[in-house]
Amino acid sequence: MKRSGRLVALTNFFLENPRVHSNLPSFVEMFNAAKASISEDLDIIDELFREKGIGYLKRTSGSTGGVMFIPELSRDRGNQFIDQLCDRLKDPNRILPGGYLYMSDILGEPNTVREIGRIFASKFSNLEIECIVTVATKGIPLAYAVASFLQVPVVIARRNPQVTEGSSVSINYVSGSSKKIQTMVLPKRSLPEGTNVCIIDDFMKAGGTINGMVSLLKEFNANVKAIGVLAEADDEEEERVVNDYTSLVKISSVDIKENFISVQRGNYI
Amino acid sequence: MKRSGRLVALTNFFLENPRVHSNLPSFVEMFNAAKASISEDLDIIDELFREKGIGYLKRTSGSTGGVMFIPELSRDRGNQFIDQLCDRLKDPNRILPGGYLYMSDILGEPNTVREIGRIFASKFSNLEIECIVTVATKGIPLAYAVASFLQVPVVIARRNPQVTEGSSVSINYVSGSSKKIQTMVLPKRSLPEGTNVCIIDDFMKAGGTINGMVSLLKEFNANVKAIGVLAEADDEEEERVVNDYTSLVKISSVDIKENFISVQRGNYI
Repeated sequence: MKRSGRLVALTNFFLENPRVHSNLPSFVEMFNAAKASISEDLDIIDELFREKGIGYLKRTSGSTGGVMFIPELSRDRGNQFIDQLCDRLKDPNRILPGGYLYMSDILGEPNTVREIGRIFASKFSNLEIECIVTVATKGIPLAYAVASFLQVPVVIARRNPQVTEGSSVSINYVSGSSKKIQTMVLPKRSLPEGTNVCIIDDFMKAGGTINGMVSLLKEFNANVKAIGVLAEADDEEEERVVNDYTSLVKISSVDIKENFISVQRGNYI
Repeated sequence: MKRSGRLVALTNFFLENPRVHSNLPSFVEMFNAAKASISEDLDIIDELFREKGIGYLKRTSGSTGGVMFIPELSRDRGNQFIDQLCDRLKDPNRILPGGYLYMSDILGEPNTVREIGRIFASKFSNLEIECIVTVATKGIPLAYAVASFLQVPVVIARRNPQVTEGSSVSINYVSGSSKKIQTMVLPKRSLPEGTNVCIIDDFMKAGGTINGMVSLLKEFNANVKAIGVLAEADDEEEERVVNDYTSLVKISSVDIKENFISVQRGNYI
């Protein structure tokens, strides 16, 4: 195959298989090309990926030599995206009775969700995360987006045990904002002991739900390496029970009377 | 920019933006290259995409000329994937008490979920679908995968209304297998009137849940253009209430005594 075809095929391969290690000889065979040519192809792709701020090719030397695509959004692209998100969230039409914020439309856009996943995956790139954990329902698409860039599976905790998931471990916890006792369950066979996990959710107020997930994960001897939430909300009445987390945006107030929402960048930037 | 760099940049652009229409002049400007060169680049990419069975570039002529990447998995790749899925589902370790089948591990793999999405999106490519609808919880990742290839939003129906979603429309329906009355709700502002929708879910037995979604969508005057389920199960006691659907695999029996699961290709092939 000619260089032009190889570049398209290799670019497609890397984008579809982030963090998958490939040996140079396998490409040599696949394209029936010289090792030096493949190596030049990889240089071209690496340079363009870096220039576009979407990641880079990690090369390993040695007898065979290998390569892996590491997706990594540039700070600039990340910040720009977060600022756009803040602007969209400020729209007063989002205010719901009770001072809640309608975000389902944003969470329903595959491209937006994918970009959020790319940002978290970039941030947590070096933490050797082996699994993403979320709790049903709204965090699920975000969890899959992060997982697709880190090339790890997703495990979903639920409020109620399901017959289709076999025996499960459950905990009771007190929700931070409503002070109600809640239950959360995780199927026993969903997570091997001692896994490095990353918790992803859409929204965090006092942090009761995230804290519940942390407690539940302790039962699996999991190591919580990172916590990522799309939006955090200030809750003046409650002390936050989770401290070490990454948020993309911060909703500091929803003023129903003045029809005004105050949104800033989260602690990611 | 040289051809080599352009090919990488354009491949990345198309894969990240399926079904987005671009004008040739915008590429001419972006890469500071002649229109004839860009046109040749597109020919190279189109040829490779077709060869790999991942889709094609749809070109439009006219004064400006345009191009759009249509993801379309080849039949061969689709069939091969479905056969592998059948093999994995036959593993007797998946049998749960009550004759249920554990599938959460498969549904937790981002690459597998993405491939399932690619298959449905290819099948429903020409139906002018404007929105994917699913019901919480397990169908959600599949719905997003399909949506990402069709470049349309996802709307999630729920069992209970949520304060964070505003006013909603709800219906009661009778579940096919348990004969219980169930509720399903969809936020009012989630779907404009008259939208062309595709329903996606992980599992269908008698079809009560899918039928519930169809009824709920009638309240929005939506046009259900397609229904896709990952797995269908034979239910000898119940007549199926949904007939026009696409399934990837069919689970015809789970024999707890003999520790045997019978899985075949669904009606997709």
